[in-house]
Amino acid sequence: MDIRSLFDIELPVIQAPMAGVQGSALAIAASGAGGLGSLPCAMLALDRLREELETIRAGTNAPFNVNFFCHRVPTVDEQREAAWRAALAPYYREFGIVADEGPAGPGRAPFDDATADVLEPVRPPVVSFHFGLPSPALVARVKSWGTKIISSATTVDEACWLESRGVDAVIAQGVEAGGHRGMFLSDDLCTQVGTLALVPQVVAAVKCPVIAAGGIADANGVAAAMAPGAAGVQVGTAYLLCPEADTTPIHRAALQGETARHTALTNVFTGRPARSIVNRIVRELGPVSADAPAFPLALGAMLPLRAKAESQGSGDFSPLWAGQNASGCRATPAGELTRALAARIG
Amino acid sequence: MDIRSLFDIELPVIQAPMAGVQGSALAIAASGAGGLGSLPCAMLALDRLREELETIRAGTNAPFNVNFFCHRVPTVDEQREAAWRAALAPYYREFGIVADEGPAGPGRAPFDDATADVLEPVRPPVVSFHFGLPSPALVARVKSWGTKIISSATTVDEACWLESRGVDAVIAQGVEAGGHRGMFLSDDLCTQVGTLALVPQVVAAVKCPVIAAGGIADANGVAAAMAPGAAGVQVGTAYLLCPEADTTPIHRAALQGETARHTALTNVFTGRPARSIVNRIVRELGPVSADAPAFPLALGAMLPLRAKAESQGSGDFSPLWAGQNASGCRATPAGELTRALAARIG
Repeated sequence: MDIRSLFDIELPVIQAPMAGVQGSALAIAASGAGGLGSLPCAMLALDRLREELETIRAGTNAPFNVNFFCHRVPTVDEQREAAWRAALAPYYREFGIVADEGPAGPGRAPFDDATADVLEPVRPPVVSFHFGLPSPALVARVKSWGTKIISSATTVDEACWLESRGVDAVIAQGVEAGGHRGMFLSDDLCTQVGTLALVPQVVAAVKCPVIAAGGIADANGVAAAMAPGAAGVQVGTAYLLCPEADTTPIHRAALQGETARHTALTNVFTGRPARSIVNRIVRELGPVSADAPAFPLALGAMLPLRAKAESQGSGDFSPLWAGQNASGCRATPAGELTRALAARIG
Repeated sequence: MDIRSLFDIELPVIQAPMAGVQGSALAIAASGAGGLGSLPCAMLALDRLREELETIRAGTNAPFNVNFFCHRVPTVDEQREAAWRAALAPYYREFGIVADEGPAGPGRAPFDDATADVLEPVRPPVVSFHFGLPSPALVARVKSWGTKIISSATTVDEACWLESRGVDAVIAQGVEAGGHRGMFLSDDLCTQVGTLALVPQVVAAVKCPVIAAGGIADANGVAAAMAPGAAGVQVGTAYLLCPEADTTPIHRAALQGETARHTALTNVFTGRPARSIVNRIVRELGPVSADAPAFPLALGAMLPLRAKAESQGSGDFSPLWAGQNASGCRATPAGELTRALAARIG
């Protein structure tokens, strides 16, 4: 089944949820153009989530997707916290920042019943998850609203796991994709494969529709990703320069230069591997640091550095999320981009 | 320009040269079916090369490709050799192998004038290189025969470098590909990108035809790889089960199981990053070992272990070269496979 009929949309293009760089405006534009716009909710407090949902409902009648993380909340490992603070200490000194000695609090809350309480009156057409799925009870609760559930798989094993737990479609997230890897059954980065290798193997392994993600930047990329049997695509990076995105000027500049060609899977920003343009902190502490506390605990100690550096016009400590193919990034309205992405689809 | 007109072949499919697992038989079958068969020559002594070329000339009138490595021969670093022997010592003890204390000799010779002397009377239609190009004089010598020259690029920078030195086409080798990474301008594995991300960026950066490689396993994969503007494809892994290949029974068995889903870029077999199915030695010493001597010096010390383990039916120390998509591996004749790969090409 094509995702057009699954989600009742015109174009088989999902605008990927990108926490921290977009809100309802981008989702409304993508959905309004016939794709499936997405609201990333991992960083939203419940009040803010309620407001954003109202904004979307007011902004479009078209189907949309709301996205949540469903990681397990980690216990604080004091030794790792100390090692991480020690690793960052030279940078704190360089920028004259006084270290907060307390453990960094979680900056991302996983999906829970309180979140579901906010969603229930809205009954969003689609909910997507990253890092697996919430509890079976929560999955059942969301499905009871008539909401379709999708989640990311980075391996065949993860795709089968998701299908067996009732998802309506699987997002096959190739290693090219920007932002956080959706991986949840293994933390071995060697298991992560390219989109062109992942999609056909997932298509062969599951019966549900497969949505291709990773490295897709334009209409040719959409055609390429769908050729092995994908039912649709999810595209993120290409939307980062759209006027409706909240991408910072520093991040926008990085995406437009040759620097964007050099990305890495790094855990230095959040504790989980995520693809960012390689900048100073990725180069010096990463790309993968054994000291980085478990997701999302690594975040806290990096934030003051990021804020200070950005205030000086530097992206040296910012997560410059990007996939391996930033060639599709254009400062064009998201609706136009959505239609352009689907231009070769029959 | 499509590679069909560039190489005067019927199908835009290059059977990838795979040193150690195939010879003239596979090349003849692929060329005979209308694709471009390849003879991997990196491991052939000159007498053997001469024989294989004669065999191909006798076996087919169709164009074919001969492939060479063009690495710089490394100087032996005694400290690294010692560290490598120390890392392997426990395995030598386990298998009762007496260590040869001399430095491991190079097992792969780069392309040179003596090799060109053997090629010249044959004037092979296509010569492909891996790890860059030989000297400009050697490139000019090969081109003077009317031979087309191609080489692998793993980044946009490498593609531009190759084009500026006169290649007739660039192979864009995505990170999914099996065997050795062709990378030569950087040894940073973070620079290596998926086929779906690499191909369009290379197509945009160079004027010469671009051949897509990596993760392509079947007709849908060929269509996918060509959608972003590739002029043809190069496929390796899918040929490994063909009766014309010399793939060992151990390697064939690994390709057919779930083990084939877990590959890694490892330097433990040769000193250069190459994609192999993850086996015991990759898991225990790699995937990337700082102790492994420079290519090809890491080879020598591993060979006795490989031989002993294989004699006991184990592939624990064998390079089980494979790309990230082994789903196209079939024990069908290579000619049939070549035609099947091109089935969706107009």
